[in-house]
Amino acid sequence: MSTSRSTVKELLNSSKQQPQIRVCGWVRSVRRGKDIAFIALNDGSCQGSLQIVVAASLLEAPALTALGTGACIAVQGNLVPSPAAEQSWELQADQLELLGGVDAAYPLQKKRHSFEYLRSIAHLRPRANTFGAVFRMRSALAFAVHQFFQERGFLYVHTPIITTNDCEGAGEMFRVTTLNPATPPMIDGRIDWAQDFFGNRAGLTVSGQLQGELFAMAFADIYTFGPTFRAENSNTSRHASEFWMIEPEMAFADLERNCEVAEAFFRYLVTYALEHCRDDLAFFNERIAPGLIDRLEQLVGGQFHRVSYSEAIRLLEQSGRAFEFPVAWGQDLQSEHERYLTEEVFAGPIFVTDYPQQIKAFYMRRNDDNKTVAAMDLLVPRVGEIIGGSQREERLEVLEQRMIAHGIEPASLDWYLDIRRWGSCPHAGFGLGFERLLMYLTGMENIRDVIPFPRTPGHARF
Amino acid sequence: MSTSRSTVKELLNSSKQQPQIRVCGWVRSVRRGKDIAFIALNDGSCQGSLQIVVAASLLEAPALTALGTGACIAVQGNLVPSPAAEQSWELQADQLELLGGVDAAYPLQKKRHSFEYLRSIAHLRPRANTFGAVFRMRSALAFAVHQFFQERGFLYVHTPIITTNDCEGAGEMFRVTTLNPATPPMIDGRIDWAQDFFGNRAGLTVSGQLQGELFAMAFADIYTFGPTFRAENSNTSRHASEFWMIEPEMAFADLERNCEVAEAFFRYLVTYALEHCRDDLAFFNERIAPGLIDRLEQLVGGQFHRVSYSEAIRLLEQSGRAFEFPVAWGQDLQSEHERYLTEEVFAGPIFVTDYPQQIKAFYMRRNDDNKTVAAMDLLVPRVGEIIGGSQREERLEVLEQRMIAHGIEPASLDWYLDIRRWGSCPHAGFGLGFERLLMYLTGMENIRDVIPFPRTPGHARF
Repeated sequence: MSTSRSTVKELLNSSKQQPQIRVCGWVRSVRRGKDIAFIALNDGSCQGSLQIVVAASLLEAPALTALGTGACIAVQGNLVPSPAAEQSWELQADQLELLGGVDAAYPLQKKRHSFEYLRSIAHLRPRANTFGAVFRMRSALAFAVHQFFQERGFLYVHTPIITTNDCEGAGEMFRVTTLNPATPPMIDGRIDWAQDFFGNRAGLTVSGQLQGELFAMAFADIYTFGPTFRAENSNTSRHASEFWMIEPEMAFADLERNCEVAEAFFRYLVTYALEHCRDDLAFFNERIAPGLIDRLEQLVGGQFHRVSYSEAIRLLEQSGRAFEFPVAWGQDLQSEHERYLTEEVFAGPIFVTDYPQQIKAFYMRRNDDNKTVAAMDLLVPRVGEIIGGSQREERLEVLEQRMIAHGIEPASLDWYLDIRRWGSCPHAGFGLGFERLLMYLTGMENIRDVIPFPRTPGHARF
Repeated sequence: MSTSRSTVKELLNSSKQQPQIRVCGWVRSVRRGKDIAFIALNDGSCQGSLQIVVAASLLEAPALTALGTGACIAVQGNLVPSPAAEQSWELQADQLELLGGVDAAYPLQKKRHSFEYLRSIAHLRPRANTFGAVFRMRSALAFAVHQFFQERGFLYVHTPIITTNDCEGAGEMFRVTTLNPATPPMIDGRIDWAQDFFGNRAGLTVSGQLQGELFAMAFADIYTFGPTFRAENSNTSRHASEFWMIEPEMAFADLERNCEVAEAFFRYLVTYALEHCRDDLAFFNERIAPGLIDRLEQLVGGQFHRVSYSEAIRLLEQSGRAFEFPVAWGQDLQSEHERYLTEEVFAGPIFVTDYPQQIKAFYMRRNDDNKTVAAMDLLVPRVGEIIGGSQREERLEVLEQRMIAHGIEPASLDWYLDIRRWGSCPHAGFGLGFERLLMYLTGMENIRDVIPFPRTPGHARF
């Protein structure tokens, strides 16, 4: 292991011949000819594989019998121009070492496997083309998220994963405990949570927003990026029990500014993918979602429209469409409504703003009409809602009223109210589900296929 | 909210006078003179405050009675050279709006508070100087972590938080469940975990390493950066129940390469802090940890030594010191031993390598002496161990033996073994506790004071 390793990506992008190169990776295929053999070698650094040209006799060594698709090898040789049309460079090997062989039981043979099958071998699927591309894009886009906010002076905050708040508002929570479930401590016929690890009933967070607001009241512009959880027993292609969310929060911002930042953020991420993930996007464009790159470029070049919820309802009522779910002011928009608006009426991304207060969370700022709140959802074609946010209620008395109306005991969130008690100010924020972004950017249709080791009801293996 | 907001940081670093500036933030202090008043305004963008100069009469408006330390204001005016020695610029205000006032009950008055008291108001402490500095550095260093690895082609992977592995090796786990603890489903007198949400007993991860290894076997160089958990009832200044870890994992790497990358990474982070967090470091240097900046600069300029565990034991035995814990080959190094080695023997950072196998985890690669494993710990003065890692056991049979010796049923980690079954290769990795890094860089002595909302036994508020 003395000579340093070049990556396949570096070699495929080389500007010149290079002698005495060392490259390591996993065999994608072996073609044996009479005199020479060709090995396609991939190391995960990029979509492409490097062609290794090796004397056929070399492969006949007894130590190399386990060299097949999936085997791990280290190769030394010279990088030279390739006569083949598909690639500029190939490696003429003079040394080849088998680091880890394979046998016939290897579950990832060189053929098309269904995504469902590949989920059952999630420990091996990163070696498949599609998942190489998915997880390279996941990594690149995670960095893009940080870069966008750091360049703009936003402070990254790690909001807590374990929480004793019952009322974060966004769904069912997992319980976190160290009590012995066979003999839990009881008091007055009920579990005595005071004896649990945190001295209270604790669960896994459904959102970092409330704590993010606390930090925005000191650092003005902040963002979170961390795992969130839903204990919902729903087996759809769009829901997972564990997923990552990005939640910026901005002091001194109103709904308008919130939309501006959300638009700039989303444009930045799509542009970043187009500029930094070109090969992987080309793969998705060809194999998974034809037209993908065109759609992404259209989005970046096009306009983001704004429409109020009330106007959206009017447009839906006038559409003459027979929707499955009824359209009526006061009802939440369904996926079919959202897609009609973004795909057919505006043929592009739209912000829908100012929703009825009864269908939105307690912390959204009440508008002067006393009927709507300063909420916004960003809808995009083919996916529907991808970002949701609002200006937050900064007025103590109004917030307390809204909490009571939502059945939340104000004292249970005293610290959240404190922020309105001392040094309060208008502020706003939004949330982007990271997996939903990845599904939009890759065209992958099941959330399980953009998460390294997905957690869903009945599934937490690996 | 029409005029866009300048940050205090931008204004303090201005290169010229600027008319009609709008700035928003929280009042650090108000000094009222006969004709004019001075307000120190901070918005979290930097350690310093901007001096606002305002006609005393303006502050006498009835609407401004709640303007005191902690109040939130928006100011408009001209940025002009300051006659005062402490700052280059000040803002001569012609408009001032109180966004959120304060009253006498505000818990964060302008005086020194104990860190212990500030923990009890963790929702407000980010507005205190020390915590402003801590959390700005936390954000900056998190970005530095990503930048280091992304620049070097490492893939960022989100390893799962919820896990059904019992044997990740690093300590007690929290249980994650949706079962009703008052009436859990029973089978043969025991809890029927098959009926729990994931169809199995689940908990919170203690490390992303095992899953990180799976990804390294497809992408070669990967890193994780996410929350990890320990359900240990220890109330020390160095332990928290929830903390963030960085765990790179590298295919084709041995122990030597592991040390090289760990050294480069640690140097990068310290250099990044020195270059990007100068004002906050100056604050810590002055108020919290005298000599801090010198120590960090020394580390960056100096050498990282290597010493084997066996040699370290010899050095300790020859020291003539009376240690509290006995020194003997086969025993783990205690904090006093580590600090003696790094502070007195080497007077700088050291890697201790090749520990006895019985005191290290099952996945560390057994050396040819059949007694030690290819482990490494990085020790630094004043802190002791800050990074721990190893080459991993890539040989299937040896790994199975070690698991059995550690009381781990190999079948329970079949997927982890699969990676050694097909396409295995030498690989290595290490872990850095993000909070320990921050304690090292800031001089803060309690882990609770470098985590936004710390979770410890009995505490999960906010």
